[in-house]
Amino acid sequence: MSELRRDPVMGRWVIIAPERARRPDQMLLSKGDRPPGPCVFCGGQEAKDPNEIFAVRDSGTAPNSRGWRVRVLPNKYPVLRIEGKLEREGVGMFDKLSGVGAHEVIVETPDHDLELADLPEAHIADVIRAYRSRVADLGGDDRFKYVLIFKNQGYQAGATLAHAHSQLIATPVTPKRVKEELLGAQRYYEFKRRCVFCDIIRQETRLTRERLVFENDTFVVISPFAARVPYETWIVPKQHNCDFVGISEAEYVGLAQALKHTLLQTRLLLDDPPLNFLIHTAPFRRQRAGYWSTISQDYHWHLEIIPRLTRPAGFEEGSGFYINPVSPEDAAVTLRTEKNTQLPEVDKTPA
Amino acid sequence: MSELRRDPVMGRWVIIAPERARRPDQMLLSKGDRPPGPCVFCGGQEAKDPNEIFAVRDSGTAPNSRGWRVRVLPNKYPVLRIEGKLEREGVGMFDKLSGVGAHEVIVETPDHDLELADLPEAHIADVIRAYRSRVADLGGDDRFKYVLIFKNQGYQAGATLAHAHSQLIATPVTPKRVKEELLGAQRYYEFKRRCVFCDIIRQETRLTRERLVFENDTFVVISPFAARVPYETWIVPKQHNCDFVGISEAEYVGLAQALKHTLLQTRLLLDDPPLNFLIHTAPFRRQRAGYWSTISQDYHWHLEIIPRLTRPAGFEEGSGFYINPVSPEDAAVTLRTEKNTQLPEVDKTPA
Repeated sequence: MSELRRDPVMGRWVIIAPERARRPDQMLLSKGDRPPGPCVFCGGQEAKDPNEIFAVRDSGTAPNSRGWRVRVLPNKYPVLRIEGKLEREGVGMFDKLSGVGAHEVIVETPDHDLELADLPEAHIADVIRAYRSRVADLGGDDRFKYVLIFKNQGYQAGATLAHAHSQLIATPVTPKRVKEELLGAQRYYEFKRRCVFCDIIRQETRLTRERLVFENDTFVVISPFAARVPYETWIVPKQHNCDFVGISEAEYVGLAQALKHTLLQTRLLLDDPPLNFLIHTAPFRRQRAGYWSTISQDYHWHLEIIPRLTRPAGFEEGSGFYINPVSPEDAAVTLRTEKNTQLPEVDKTPA
Repeated sequence: MSELRRDPVMGRWVIIAPERARRPDQMLLSKGDRPPGPCVFCGGQEAKDPNEIFAVRDSGTAPNSRGWRVRVLPNKYPVLRIEGKLEREGVGMFDKLSGVGAHEVIVETPDHDLELADLPEAHIADVIRAYRSRVADLGGDDRFKYVLIFKNQGYQAGATLAHAHSQLIATPVTPKRVKEELLGAQRYYEFKRRCVFCDIIRQETRLTRERLVFENDTFVVISPFAARVPYETWIVPKQHNCDFVGISEAEYVGLAQALKHTLLQTRLLLDDPPLNFLIHTAPFRRQRAGYWSTISQDYHWHLEIIPRLTRPAGFEEGSGFYINPVSPEDAAVTLRTEKNTQLPEVDKTPA
């Protein structure tokens, strides 16, 4: 069973998960050599899977059978386990916490050969609906403080299975990065009495458009001013809201369009790089009195896309600085370049 | 010219360094295919290099000629530049800082075919002497707050040149990770009135030895309780000291032995993995009144070795959690395994 351990100096939590080392690795192949289907995530292979937790499926079809478009399963090699009580324990001077949480897989399509970006916008909206449904449901479990939705696409971005899927992990502590973002947004609000993300949207759409990648009625896509890595993008809802669970019907459609557009541009213009994306939202509401009224003013949910074109190195690890060799303004120019093809396919030409 | 940009939400600094994209990349080969010498860092190629900043060399030999064992050069593609004033500037709501700093390369040997771990202990002690000399010298420049010494070994750990070298970057702001460590150590001291690193040494050598990898008169090597990655190790001086610049003659020898031993064990037992190491020390002394008297009690310099056996993924990026599939206790057992060979060579057997 995995456990959470707290670094006694930094206060940083680490998940020690020995079971994870036993995962089969189906992607030890170089880019382009996608292992052929069918795999356990394919339509028709439902009998090989654990029971589904949630699905968007055709009416009249039974759970754990064909007829689904999006399907949520428990991860077979979970980083944290749903069973058990949350227990704190000292080990001499050190602190640990039982590895309680949730780890689920969101299978984005029954088709083995499509990526998320290949799906119609309405289908991508269904994937986002599955995300929202799971976050809302896990919010009812008192042991959890946060759910992180994320996607690993490509071997170098941490994927072990090629079939299009994203994941979620619910954690018994609010993650450090989320806390830092919440604190930063709170400080900005205390100083300005405005949401920092709303100010970013205003600056990037009205004052200058040099880092703007895409815009529709409900979302902006920007190349952030202090991008960590080349071609990083943020997809930010125009409507202020701290909580992804509050996403509106128009926003499902708008986010699906913005996400598909940005992923296709990234694939086409950067030769299908490995990438991660993740959703940052407010921790669960119940935390403490007054908490929600503060956070609902100063925080703003959003999605971050992180292409993996550079390698981490000692300076970054030791300092926490990121070195980005592509200016965010140049990255935005590239990502705004008009596509030449109507429906791009995965580019398999060697670099 | 590069610049430092501050993320308006997180407060995190990013270095935007477009010149870095122009570096030649000599290591786009798989592991084992080390490009043959001579390269610009080899003995006899001094005429191709910029003027040396420092060298450990045979008496009577002239700078920028043969006869050196360790040699420090300016980085030809610096992340930050030594020329110029430190200037702060606003860009609408955003903040930036001119990219002033120092970026140097410590060439560890004139021999193209040796790694740091292959060198005699006395030679490794000379490399550490070069580190100390450069940190002490750069401390005299008022524009800098910190110098990070680090090594990238292997392509997946960020190295672009195969010839054994480490690097240093002096920064005009104290890096985030260092600040977090300083703050964590300070909080622990306020609570316990003891240095957290001294307490870790006591626990890991007296209370239990299950995470102890190596020990000599002056240093301990441990597998840290909350290790971020598989087989991470920390080399910590037994003598409390916040400042690497205060390293003693006995500690040069002890650190060289501990570092050589740990790097050889890591190479032999883990099939020569890509790795980074870095030194964490106190920021420069001059910062503010009372600062040094506090930090000299609560902080403790050390060296961290980070093998790169796992890939970063979306959960880690979005949460700041690390997932480590190898328990630190198991890692210590592996790293304590006795070597079978006297002088190990790089193991080129496929895994």
